[in-house]
Amino acid sequence: MNHECDTRQRIVDGARDLIHGRSYHDVGVAEICARAGVRKGSFYHFFPSKQELSLAVIDEMRVGIAAGVLSPALAPDLAPMQRLDRFVDKLYDFQRLAASASGHLSGCPFGNLALELATSDEVIRQRLQSVFADIESRFASVLEEAVAAGDIDEIDTAATARAMLAYIEGILLMAKTANDPELIRQLGHALTGIRIHPRDG
Amino acid sequence: MNHECDTRQRIVDGARDLIHGRSYHDVGVAEICARAGVRKGSFYHFFPSKQELSLAVIDEMRVGIAAGVLSPALAPDLAPMQRLDRFVDKLYDFQRLAASASGHLSGCPFGNLALELATSDEVIRQRLQSVFADIESRFASVLEEAVAAGDIDEIDTAATARAMLAYIEGILLMAKTANDPELIRQLGHALTGIRIHPRDG
Repeated sequence: MNHECDTRQRIVDGARDLIHGRSYHDVGVAEICARAGVRKGSFYHFFPSKQELSLAVIDEMRVGIAAGVLSPALAPDLAPMQRLDRFVDKLYDFQRLAASASGHLSGCPFGNLALELATSDEVIRQRLQSVFADIESRFASVLEEAVAAGDIDEIDTAATARAMLAYIEGILLMAKTANDPELIRQLGHALTGIRIHPRDG
Repeated sequence: MNHECDTRQRIVDGARDLIHGRSYHDVGVAEICARAGVRKGSFYHFFPSKQELSLAVIDEMRVGIAAGVLSPALAPDLAPMQRLDRFVDKLYDFQRLAASASGHLSGCPFGNLALELATSDEVIRQRLQSVFADIESRFASVLEEAVAAGDIDEIDTAATARAMLAYIEGILLMAKTANDPELIRQLGHALTGIRIHPRDG
């Protein structure tokens, strides 16, 4: 990695950690620069605005979570519905470890940004919506497999996938509010029971 | 209402609307004062810190939502599980109207503050947790009635109530991200199917 790439990466990584640990508006450019060890001029060379930095942070996390959580959790070595349970287990492990390191359960970085920014930044809102659409689409594929295998009855797989993602976001919200990762396990048991039938939509 | 009370109330109402429309850190004291038509000195007379203002805003919304949404939705004129469906209907109506007025679906004011502040403000985190505990307890009473009436099988009512609140928070998060109130209706159908059984906990 050349020097230019490395500087940009340090800014994105620093911003990701600070924003995920607190919030978008609570973290300023000066603090991000200090964390990354770069000067403000250098920051603005890579990111003309905090919005552009945020989009880079979202894209970075999207790739990281797909590779680190979604793909291993949903890999086809288990029956479809068991993969969704494994996804909950991985969320629990990740949040528990991160919370025990920092003292605070930080929850879903996409959900955090969505609730803070969706009403005030249309570009970030749309980017987050596309992240959620990707996750829904992965869940929907798993559900389609489960239906095809006869493991579950006919459902509206797209709507059920969205409902499952909503439930996961809600679980992470409650766990963050309680600062207690055990809620992820307790509530996660109900994930695979969620169903939306075609007539409901 | 005397002048002092009226001034305090205008500050709380202004802060509530601004913060719910955007976010806690995106709204400053100067803007709240301008909205309320008060001077900064007057603001700090009532609220020595933004944290104290936020607690007053949370308490105000807690009373408002209990009286305006929870109590009418969960009133015993319907069978227990139908009350939960009515709660979803009321959320939908409220968010749809508010979104059509402002152009943005603002979601749950408690969930918004929780994701923005839970890791950085312990006092606000605990206050929000107690708001959620109240709502869970109301849901749990409805579920206990449903079990007693034989409408649903034996469940862990406290854990199921928490799971239902998590699901509602997640639905509002997804609806806010999509800026689309119809998601509340689409996903809300699955609310009363959520179950956590004693062995799951």
